[in-house]
Amino acid sequence: MTGAMKVEELDTPVLLVDAGALERNIIAMRDIAAATGVAYRPHAKTHKSPIVANMQLEAGAVGVCCAKLGEAEIMAAAGIPDILITSQVVGRNKLVRLIQAAQTAKIMVVADNEDNISDLSSAAQTGGKPMDVLIEVDIGQGRCGVPPGPEATRLARLIAETKWLRFRGLQGYQGLIQMTADFDQRQAQVELALEKLMDTADHLKSASIEIDILTGGGSGSSIIDSALGRYTELQPGSYVFMDSRYRHAQWPGGAPCPFENALTILGTVISRPATDRAIVDVGYKAASSDGGPIVVAGNMDAEFSFAGDEHGQLFFPGRTCPLALGDKVTFLPSHCDTTVNLYDGYIVTRDGLVEDVWEIAARGRVQ
Amino acid sequence: MTGAMKVEELDTPVLLVDAGALERNIIAMRDIAAATGVAYRPHAKTHKSPIVANMQLEAGAVGVCCAKLGEAEIMAAAGIPDILITSQVVGRNKLVRLIQAAQTAKIMVVADNEDNISDLSSAAQTGGKPMDVLIEVDIGQGRCGVPPGPEATRLARLIAETKWLRFRGLQGYQGLIQMTADFDQRQAQVELALEKLMDTADHLKSASIEIDILTGGGSGSSIIDSALGRYTELQPGSYVFMDSRYRHAQWPGGAPCPFENALTILGTVISRPATDRAIVDVGYKAASSDGGPIVVAGNMDAEFSFAGDEHGQLFFPGRTCPLALGDKVTFLPSHCDTTVNLYDGYIVTRDGLVEDVWEIAARGRVQ
Repeated sequence: MTGAMKVEELDTPVLLVDAGALERNIIAMRDIAAATGVAYRPHAKTHKSPIVANMQLEAGAVGVCCAKLGEAEIMAAAGIPDILITSQVVGRNKLVRLIQAAQTAKIMVVADNEDNISDLSSAAQTGGKPMDVLIEVDIGQGRCGVPPGPEATRLARLIAETKWLRFRGLQGYQGLIQMTADFDQRQAQVELALEKLMDTADHLKSASIEIDILTGGGSGSSIIDSALGRYTELQPGSYVFMDSRYRHAQWPGGAPCPFENALTILGTVISRPATDRAIVDVGYKAASSDGGPIVVAGNMDAEFSFAGDEHGQLFFPGRTCPLALGDKVTFLPSHCDTTVNLYDGYIVTRDGLVEDVWEIAARGRVQ
Repeated sequence: MTGAMKVEELDTPVLLVDAGALERNIIAMRDIAAATGVAYRPHAKTHKSPIVANMQLEAGAVGVCCAKLGEAEIMAAAGIPDILITSQVVGRNKLVRLIQAAQTAKIMVVADNEDNISDLSSAAQTGGKPMDVLIEVDIGQGRCGVPPGPEATRLARLIAETKWLRFRGLQGYQGLIQMTADFDQRQAQVELALEKLMDTADHLKSASIEIDILTGGGSGSSIIDSALGRYTELQPGSYVFMDSRYRHAQWPGGAPCPFENALTILGTVISRPATDRAIVDVGYKAASSDGGPIVVAGNMDAEFSFAGDEHGQLFFPGRTCPLALGDKVTFLPSHCDTTVNLYDGYIVTRDGLVEDVWEIAARGRVQ
């Protein structure tokens, strides 16, 4: 073998990251935040890789978010210094692990429950180190969080009065509006959600409780979040790779999406059972389906459908399938986060050549 | 800690296997096959574990099926002696790996394409060992395989005339009918599919081509497949763990399903945002969704819905949620195969105590 391996030489299915597109996405989010000076803390649940996290930090991110303690442990062990765990950390085992991880990194947590706050306090005391806590507010998603309004004030006071905890602010995330296609409608939805967060913040301020951090927002709302200037920190995740299901989302003034599809799945045609269809080796175990079917990259006008755990079908209605046995096909994941979680590593490519392999170090860290 | 750990003490989300239920499922399939003397070769794509594969072999299975070469490599390396790879192995890299794996185990492959047969022959010659090949026939699923009828005869002859290949028989699998609820309807569908396979076999016989193996069938059709006596080998997979989505399938004479739900996901309540709902730490990354929503085990009358990658919601319409923060909840996966693929190991339990941990050695082996 002379020189770098070509992408086409790889065994499939395989998960590819286009290094150039990834780098441009990281710069694009830096620019969106820099335009208004808001801080940003990208969500590492998307990439689960300390290597990508470090690229984001080098571009100016103030830290990373993690969805699970298990991800935070990986990031802390890899030297990422500043982490926000965006889901509640509940239970004795987990709190023991949390104070251990907090020995090597600054870790903030979110809470929405009095008992959990009491447990966090005991854990912090055991660890001998005060813990920073944010209150999560449900700003419309209907998932975790206290309702907007006075309840957060009660919990914040409880935290502030607890020796081993420090109240730092509020988290409010509305995931359901990130992919609203119409830009004006998305803007209105973001404003509505932010009103709920600011209303809650007003209650805190009138009770003389200081707020350092207002965190939330996603990749689809990032431009709006930055412009509105309410959040002190944004926590976008998907923008590093960009899900294909975002492709219908409009951007201000009809501008193209500022983020490129940097993540792809390469598959191979393993059967040509009829003139108008091909079977590829990409099924539910090689591409997540929770975000809908995956999409063929490029100009090939074919309909993809999952055909089981290990198979996908490419249908060319009324046409002859141009693919031969062994041909490689590139797909855009519909949902990058859950697709990344299926693989042990990224094959990093540049201009069609393999440049590196990065471990997906927090793959499977659901605990 | 005195004695064995209790299941409730485990961090969550975690994947549990009930050892007793697993053992009974393995015996139940042995009995279904033994009733008519048909051989069976369980599909290891479900469990991806040489430990479970060995339990199946000890019960009398003639070997295992693997969906991917990457799984077969794991099984061969662990000493499983007899493997059928049920998907086409295509491409030079893969064929090199195939002949390497075939040094340690007897590996049969399926083919449906002339070029692939030619490549298999070259690979077998390079490996210095004849390779056993089956022709896949599409008996109704519309995925891989030659159409029923004379085409298989042409390919079988090609294989038989190739020095380094041995034609062994036909594979015909119809996955779309495994979960048909009405038993009589399922029986009729199985008979229709089998007619296509037997018609193809008749073409081969009239061309004086010998057939050793007719393989196919799944967990839902297993009783029918065994009774009809057409297959020489059955390849059921799901029965070891049993997906909850099979729960609507009827069995002969109104009998209960012969297989128990041996696989569960244990989750924890991490938020109690309203009186009628709880949020658990089980989302798309801890339970596959391609088979529909997961189901709460036991008698708890709650509606589960996925609430993102890391969250699930339990809704108690018009009632007060009986769960407190930190409570553990047991779920039945809707689709075991794709759920198993998300975890690195099984926690093996018996009577509510942790008995062992088994590595999911072929997790993520999609290539």
